[in-house]
Amino acid sequence: MFNEEYFRFKELVEEHLLHFLPEVDNKSITLYESMTYSLKAGGKLLRPVLLLASCEFCGGDVKLALPYACAIEYIHTYSLIHDDLPAMDNDDLRRGIPTNHKVFGDAIAILAGDGLLNSAFEAMNKDMLLYLDDMDKLKRRVRAIYEISKGAGCRGMIAGQIADIEAENKQCTKELLDYIHVNKTAALIKSAVRAGAHLAGADKKTFQDLDEYAENLGLAFQIVDDILDINGDEEELGKKTGSDQAKKKATYPCRYGYEESKQKVWELTDNAKRAMEHYYDNAEFFVQLADELAVRIK
Amino acid sequence: MFNEEYFRFKELVEEHLLHFLPEVDNKSITLYESMTYSLKAGGKLLRPVLLLASCEFCGGDVKLALPYACAIEYIHTYSLIHDDLPAMDNDDLRRGIPTNHKVFGDAIAILAGDGLLNSAFEAMNKDMLLYLDDMDKLKRRVRAIYEISKGAGCRGMIAGQIADIEAENKQCTKELLDYIHVNKTAALIKSAVRAGAHLAGADKKTFQDLDEYAENLGLAFQIVDDILDINGDEEELGKKTGSDQAKKKATYPCRYGYEESKQKVWELTDNAKRAMEHYYDNAEFFVQLADELAVRIK
Repeated sequence: MFNEEYFRFKELVEEHLLHFLPEVDNKSITLYESMTYSLKAGGKLLRPVLLLASCEFCGGDVKLALPYACAIEYIHTYSLIHDDLPAMDNDDLRRGIPTNHKVFGDAIAILAGDGLLNSAFEAMNKDMLLYLDDMDKLKRRVRAIYEISKGAGCRGMIAGQIADIEAENKQCTKELLDYIHVNKTAALIKSAVRAGAHLAGADKKTFQDLDEYAENLGLAFQIVDDILDINGDEEELGKKTGSDQAKKKATYPCRYGYEESKQKVWELTDNAKRAMEHYYDNAEFFVQLADELAVRIK
Repeated sequence: MFNEEYFRFKELVEEHLLHFLPEVDNKSITLYESMTYSLKAGGKLLRPVLLLASCEFCGGDVKLALPYACAIEYIHTYSLIHDDLPAMDNDDLRRGIPTNHKVFGDAIAILAGDGLLNSAFEAMNKDMLLYLDDMDKLKRRVRAIYEISKGAGCRGMIAGQIADIEAENKQCTKELLDYIHVNKTAALIKSAVRAGAHLAGADKKTFQDLDEYAENLGLAFQIVDDILDINGDEEELGKKTGSDQAKKKATYPCRYGYEESKQKVWELTDNAKRAMEHYYDNAEFFVQLADELAVRIK
């Protein structure tokens, strides 16, 4: 049941993922190819799936939420392209295929990232033009797009990336490690859930519960990712493991060890589930998703 | 009179330029410093000035247009930071001071650029939240932000940058050269003027005239820039000259020579002025601005 639900959302996103990119002409074919190369590389599509699931949970129409779901995947993908650059993490492999700059060169990869970030906002802004005569729907969209811009920006994902770089090779305080975690990954995951709820016009209580869920899920997800970088299967992950240790990144398992990190994952997973459990069967998708993410570390 | 007008708009932008950046905490101080380093480096502020002038010309309130004016300067500045990177144009000097990556390193410069692009949309989206109960003002803002997202994106500035890179070291057709010109610089300049008109709720005829003006001005501006790269004064320009030739960039003067390029600038300048001359004194600012940009090549 959970798998079918996830697949339904994921398939919807996959079918529409290129649909909201601006139409480019034949002189920008390299730009388009480099952007879509990374978009089509697959991945779990966790953020857009969460956005759609949150929207549907709050009574919204997932089809109308697609521009926002795809936009958040454009943002996630741009961040990976820039992260992988030689000037940043210098990674050769991502989602099982060579990283963007390995195929297109650094200059095109930088512009492909810029193009995806810009396209995300272009797609969402274009969608808003469709609702100029429907004040209620327009308001929801304005709130959703602001939510995403915040989560992706200098008080969200980008703040986390800067802190991550600055913490390399340094003794990292607990406070800084938490800051990196809250911002690098959890912020955009939280934005996805909040944006979905905004699009559906969620009531305050449901919004708060989803927010609590997303915050804990996002933090758990980052620690799982860091643990898998140590003991995960490279083929399964589609990228090289051990890179955090090599770069002396500030991560939970590096600071607290495997057992304590695992315990933290389960604690956060429990918090996430608890935020949603009073919705019983209606929130089954969210509860199971939290479990599924946690069991990846076995 | 013209100078005073330009100064009035420019000063307004300067006073508010940092105001619309997201508030960052002390863990993101490097991000903030790197973004503001490039923002504070000065420059003509042509795009935000044009946005404000266009808004005022159409009867709008320039103070309310400031988030959009500043956002377009964030976008312009991010594009310069990324353009200057070693992987792109590899420039050491910009606006008379070391380029962003020379001061902060490549990784921070990439993120500072990302941060500025994201902040531009975050600022404009945040502004829209203020007008959720004023349908007319909200509509104008939705149109303005979409205009800017288009001009900055994959059918605008980024398309021009990609074509520019791909044309390096190649025999460039007239068609490709025009494409680069239309997109690399003119697109965002046009967006600035169009966004200003949208914010003021301009009528169709005025919008079209301003559009015609901006298109010609933007193209003239790019050719002037390319000519100054050959025979301009380095100190006055605040950057090294001769770099287009060194990189075998596709530019007007490289392809058509100095005299023909100069003639093209005057032709475009005349077109720009003609689009606005039937407004007589009311459009004096725009007419003089076109002349001022053209006389830079003497």
